[in-house]
Amino acid sequence: MHLANQVLDGNIRAAARLMRDIDDTRPQAIDELKLLYPHTGKTYIIGVTGPPGAGKSTLVDQLTETFRKQGKKVGVVAIDPTSPFTGGAILGDRIRMSRHADDAGVFIRSLATRGALGGLSRSTSDVALVMDGLGMDVVIIETVGVGQDEVDIVKAAHTTCVVMVPGLGDDIQAIKAGILEIGDVFVVNKADREGADRTARELENMLEMRKSVEGSWSPKVLRTVAQSGKGIEELVGEIVAHKEYLFSSGTISDFLRERNERNFLEILRDNLFKKAMTFVEQDGGLSRVLDRIGTHETDPYSAAEKIMSKILGAAVEQ
Amino acid sequence: MHLANQVLDGNIRAAARLMRDIDDTRPQAIDELKLLYPHTGKTYIIGVTGPPGAGKSTLVDQLTETFRKQGKKVGVVAIDPTSPFTGGAILGDRIRMSRHADDAGVFIRSLATRGALGGLSRSTSDVALVMDGLGMDVVIIETVGVGQDEVDIVKAAHTTCVVMVPGLGDDIQAIKAGILEIGDVFVVNKADREGADRTARELENMLEMRKSVEGSWSPKVLRTVAQSGKGIEELVGEIVAHKEYLFSSGTISDFLRERNERNFLEILRDNLFKKAMTFVEQDGGLSRVLDRIGTHETDPYSAAEKIMSKILGAAVEQ
Repeated sequence: MHLANQVLDGNIRAAARLMRDIDDTRPQAIDELKLLYPHTGKTYIIGVTGPPGAGKSTLVDQLTETFRKQGKKVGVVAIDPTSPFTGGAILGDRIRMSRHADDAGVFIRSLATRGALGGLSRSTSDVALVMDGLGMDVVIIETVGVGQDEVDIVKAAHTTCVVMVPGLGDDIQAIKAGILEIGDVFVVNKADREGADRTARELENMLEMRKSVEGSWSPKVLRTVAQSGKGIEELVGEIVAHKEYLFSSGTISDFLRERNERNFLEILRDNLFKKAMTFVEQDGGLSRVLDRIGTHETDPYSAAEKIMSKILGAAVEQ
Repeated sequence: MHLANQVLDGNIRAAARLMRDIDDTRPQAIDELKLLYPHTGKTYIIGVTGPPGAGKSTLVDQLTETFRKQGKKVGVVAIDPTSPFTGGAILGDRIRMSRHADDAGVFIRSLATRGALGGLSRSTSDVALVMDGLGMDVVIIETVGVGQDEVDIVKAAHTTCVVMVPGLGDDIQAIKAGILEIGDVFVVNKADREGADRTARELENMLEMRKSVEGSWSPKVLRTVAQSGKGIEELVGEIVAHKEYLFSSGTISDFLRERNERNFLEILRDNLFKKAMTFVEQDGGLSRVLDRIGTHETDPYSAAEKIMSKILGAAVEQ
């Protein structure tokens, strides 16, 4: 029996195994994802992003609990910075898991920020698809929202919550601007701290500067204290309001189309590169190419073009 | 006359034009880069990275001045966060330029963090290559070192300076760990602030935890106050010491080989994708592919495979 069918039957072990296969980029994982695909699209994905120290993990925990109380199954995909010492994620599954260890309605998976460019956003989508197939009603994707990579990851989410905290200094302004356009809901967490009002006002001012189209969604700035649970209910309410807007306005179809576009292009990019590497191997291997660039016998641009022409001429030579 | 030859003659306008062509991804830019390539490799590249608010720009300014006093020509490639309001870089060339506007020995170029995944690291390398061809003795690449993207960018540098500041909070620890392995020199800037000693000690402790191989480079933690220029001379001294280590230990050849590998693979990835898009066009265009994914007639994995087989069968069909 295919892993995909077991996942669709709600088999958590099968889901975990498929995610491992995705992580290890085993080719059979793609076949399983193809089988899963037609049965997915039911999960609502929430992105939670913001600078380090904003209390995102605690907030995600609180959201998870609130959705569980509503009887919803919750998946969490946490993108953790990789430790250079262990090679593993700094906040691993184990730490996160312990809190919901006895709850079969919660499935948590950490992905580490390592590997090739673009790869992380791709595996996040694939892991979310498995959670979708597994029957999770809600999937929360949590990332440190600073780099372009992380911003791309949350684009997979229906509703993106941008989390800020008081007192991160004025210089952080640039980053605030960068994530301003991706937020559907803004949260000033640790709102019991000094400066919370100022941070919230600043965010509101920046949001007002954006020209909003008539009838489009206007993001609000909410205040939470994730540690104590204060404001979480209001946050869930705002997420639900955004979801209702997406569907009632018809914006959902644009969103899905853009997400499909990113997925398709990422997969294409990835496949192409893997294939190209087999041609590099046939051409004497990467090592020989680098020798020739090193001695200035060729340059990286010409070397890449040579491989290109081999790929395009492949059918003739075979 | 080719732009490349004009650049090699020290023509600053030609360099600026070539950089614009690179930005616009005009195909002729590649031909110019190929012509430049054999004449490059003389520039020493310094990476400056760290969280927002660490005072990197001021530090880069001070480094620029110090190198200028030594009679060296200095290029600066600043990777600035993109503003969602203007589409342009938040700290533009103009602001940065004004300080060195009358100095023909300083060439400053800002790149904005927009565009496709991987594209930024690629254009940073290309821009640095033009500065190399132009005869800059030193090129300083400045990035906000938080995302994987930015980390990849500074890998092009011979010597990478990681800049921290006191009082960014404990939660920033994870990011510290992430950039720990890429630093050749660590700088606690704004060292006149409270907590500078603690930050420096923490960094030193983390560095000590790394098992260092006999005879390998041991990064030091320096203190600077970029605003007043304090500690800048020591920083330049440490950069020079690292440069001497690179050459005397022979590590330079490993470094160059790894850099060539990244360059070659990035260029290959980029070319492949552009080519693939022409096949998508021939297949009815991206829009039709997305229609078919949207109706679940196909899935993104199968759609990508279809394009792959078209590329590999190209020579037969033509």
